[in-house]
Amino acid sequence: MTDEILAANQRFYEAFAQADLGAMDEVWAREAPVSCVHPGWGALVEREEIMLSWRAILEGDAPGEIEYGAAEAHAGEDMAYVVCSETIGEAQLIATNVFVREGGEWKLVHHHAGPVVRRARAGDKPRPGLVN
Amino acid sequence: MTDEILAANQRFYEAFAQADLGAMDEVWAREAPVSCVHPGWGALVEREEIMLSWRAILEGDAPGEIEYGAAEAHAGEDMAYVVCSETIGEAQLIATNVFVREGGEWKLVHHHAGPVVRRARAGDKPRPGLVN
Repeated sequence: MTDEILAANQRFYEAFAQADLGAMDEVWAREAPVSCVHPGWGALVEREEIMLSWRAILEGDAPGEIEYGAAEAHAGEDMAYVVCSETIGEAQLIATNVFVREGGEWKLVHHHAGPVVRRARAGDKPRPGLVN
Repeated sequence: MTDEILAANQRFYEAFAQADLGAMDEVWAREAPVSCVHPGWGALVEREEIMLSWRAILEGDAPGEIEYGAAEAHAGEDMAYVVCSETIGEAQLIATNVFVREGGEWKLVHHHAGPVVRRARAGDKPRPGLVN
């Protein structure tokens, strides 16, 4: 089960890395509500807006190389999520990606990515309102 | 169904707002794997580490008032997620909270919060590696 979810997660990053808007469109659910939180942004909640944002990213000159790593998948019956790291150029990010089953396939319903400015260590003191 | 999930989400923010570590401990799953991404941090993936981080937050002087809003819940059979805004002092954040059913109750398995530095609008051009 987690293999299928990790494969769906990989398709998302392949579409991103290859700047393939058609593949990106395929990755996202069509029936379930979708939402997307780009780093530093509020949530986009309309599929069309989300695809417009991906068009801007994938057709823009900003992204450069993207790689993901350390992907951990957790599966429910019909919903699953993956937490993984992202490296975009020199930026380190962390992402939560939520998937649901749609037409027998795992489709992305929620992407939330944010910057990592420090490694987390036990005993560190987070300051929750701030990127510290 | 979404009422139950929103109630579980609310218990998380009540524990946070009331700096109640016992209540925070109750909110999180005990059997399922858990992970927590504080703003700007990498993922904590051990329950004990996560609770240590909450202890540091809740016993610290940093948090001040926390409020959440615009919570949207999406439910699967045995897994669900909520996307909501957070206001901590003057900081605006957005959070993804994932829940699973454990012992008949919805328990938090993943919290991911990050800063919002701009509102998302259709037609804006995100720069994915950056908080822009």
